[in-house]
Amino acid sequence: MIPSSSLSVGLVQQSCCEDRSSNLAASACGIRSAALQGARLVILQELHTGPYFCQTEDCDQFDRAEAIPGPTTDELGALAAELGIVIVASLFERRAPGLYHNTAVVLEKDGSLAGRYRKMHIPDDPGYYEKFYFTPGDLGFQPIATSVGKLGVLVCWDQWYPEAARLMTLAGADLLIYPTAIGWDPSDSDAEQQRQLAAWQTIQRSHAIANGIPVVSVNRVGHEPAPDGRGPGALFWGHSFVAGCQGEILAQAGAAEEEVLVVDLDLQRSEQVRRIWPFLRDRRIDFYGELTRRFRDQPFSH
Amino acid sequence: MIPSSSLSVGLVQQSCCEDRSSNLAASACGIRSAALQGARLVILQELHTGPYFCQTEDCDQFDRAEAIPGPTTDELGALAAELGIVIVASLFERRAPGLYHNTAVVLEKDGSLAGRYRKMHIPDDPGYYEKFYFTPGDLGFQPIATSVGKLGVLVCWDQWYPEAARLMTLAGADLLIYPTAIGWDPSDSDAEQQRQLAAWQTIQRSHAIANGIPVVSVNRVGHEPAPDGRGPGALFWGHSFVAGCQGEILAQAGAAEEEVLVVDLDLQRSEQVRRIWPFLRDRRIDFYGELTRRFRDQPFSH
Repeated sequence: MIPSSSLSVGLVQQSCCEDRSSNLAASACGIRSAALQGARLVILQELHTGPYFCQTEDCDQFDRAEAIPGPTTDELGALAAELGIVIVASLFERRAPGLYHNTAVVLEKDGSLAGRYRKMHIPDDPGYYEKFYFTPGDLGFQPIATSVGKLGVLVCWDQWYPEAARLMTLAGADLLIYPTAIGWDPSDSDAEQQRQLAAWQTIQRSHAIANGIPVVSVNRVGHEPAPDGRGPGALFWGHSFVAGCQGEILAQAGAAEEEVLVVDLDLQRSEQVRRIWPFLRDRRIDFYGELTRRFRDQPFSH
Repeated sequence: MIPSSSLSVGLVQQSCCEDRSSNLAASACGIRSAALQGARLVILQELHTGPYFCQTEDCDQFDRAEAIPGPTTDELGALAAELGIVIVASLFERRAPGLYHNTAVVLEKDGSLAGRYRKMHIPDDPGYYEKFYFTPGDLGFQPIATSVGKLGVLVCWDQWYPEAARLMTLAGADLLIYPTAIGWDPSDSDAEQQRQLAAWQTIQRSHAIANGIPVVSVNRVGHEPAPDGRGPGALFWGHSFVAGCQGEILAQAGAAEEEVLVVDLDLQRSEQVRRIWPFLRDRRIDFYGELTRRFRDQPFSH
């Protein structure tokens, strides 16, 4: 499918509380607002139905998981159909007892489930204990075909991996989409916090540049205290943004407030930019085989 | 070899004229200045012995090529030995009749040739007709071991490829080094020129971030008219810079002037940054095999 040249994209940056229905109501409110402003594709942040529950390792948190399709895809599918838009959501998927994923879903404008992406790169840091909760994805890096284009949906930690962005691009993605939940350790210095925020935007902008496609990243805001009362909690840094095909920032949200951004993307610009920056033409695929190694401890032989 | 924790790096950003000996004298002057300021590693820009001759396709330009080792490595090797420093230079290599490369060389502090890197990704744009002059490198992505660390030497167009940076990292590079010659088309709008410059820094900073190692990029300055008098020529944009392990800019030169930068790098910081950002830990090498394809026209099956 050839995407139309202009695509209006909405980003819903929100804070989350413990109550699932309140969070979903806030998401729906943001989606409606974006649609009213003309958005035909609306993207929610990572795990938007609840607080970021990975601050501790706690078996009871698995109760938050749900089937896909399931209650949230039903609700958001109905909203997508009502508004005639495509929605990207991010859910805690219960696949089988003891088998869970961090999964993004795409709802088509007729309400159907267009596809899912299971987060491939799983972090694990103090306060972000995701390896406890999420089995690494097994669906690979495959764009999801929709009425508004092929969506290169990835999730959060994936954003640090050029490999993920490239594989989505090679499979025909028209744009890259990152629902995310990233924040500062409130005990870090201001300089360290600013370096981290800048690095987070820089690496994602670089995916736009390397691949000649837009990048949309949607993050949460707000402070969420540690559930066990130990440690400083997480201060999500917002700054949801859209970058164009040369990595230029087209729009970005602030650090602390809930916001709805609506941005017009010209998807035909990829064709123009890739003609002046034909990076895909010159990849040395004859020498890239070693990318599948963990580390090249031994001298390279070809 | 474990690099020392602190490494002072010098960057020589210069303009070039037609006369080889004048250009080399200017390079030597910059190298001496950097060494006097404490640099133990000094990096020159791409093809620093002459003008950027790839603006047209002209067989006579092959006369500029030289053997490696050859006259320039002899001169720079002697200087490296005199000053007791490591030098990274960039030469037009004549390998055999009709077989030429764009090759970076590393001179050890004893004056010996520590190694060479043949540019792997070769551009070809109006005014940058490199595919006419340079056979793509056949040595792969292998850091060059020196007394100051393992140097991940790449050249110019390579800087747009995350694969190159990653492969150097996986092979143990302590830092990434890009001699480069990149400039504006003077007929482009100011907005386009600024997007290009920002993209150029952003993609290289992203390599520092993705891999947790510093990046040093050295570019030329000055306007060089088209040799055939047709077209606006090239306006090299300078902005040589050093980025730390989180992609933060540690120092950068201006757009138009010859400059020598000397920057202290803490190579042990890679260890610290990679502990908080353990990207190498989580790479999904089981799903990266498709990176060796030109494009994934068919649905991915794993």
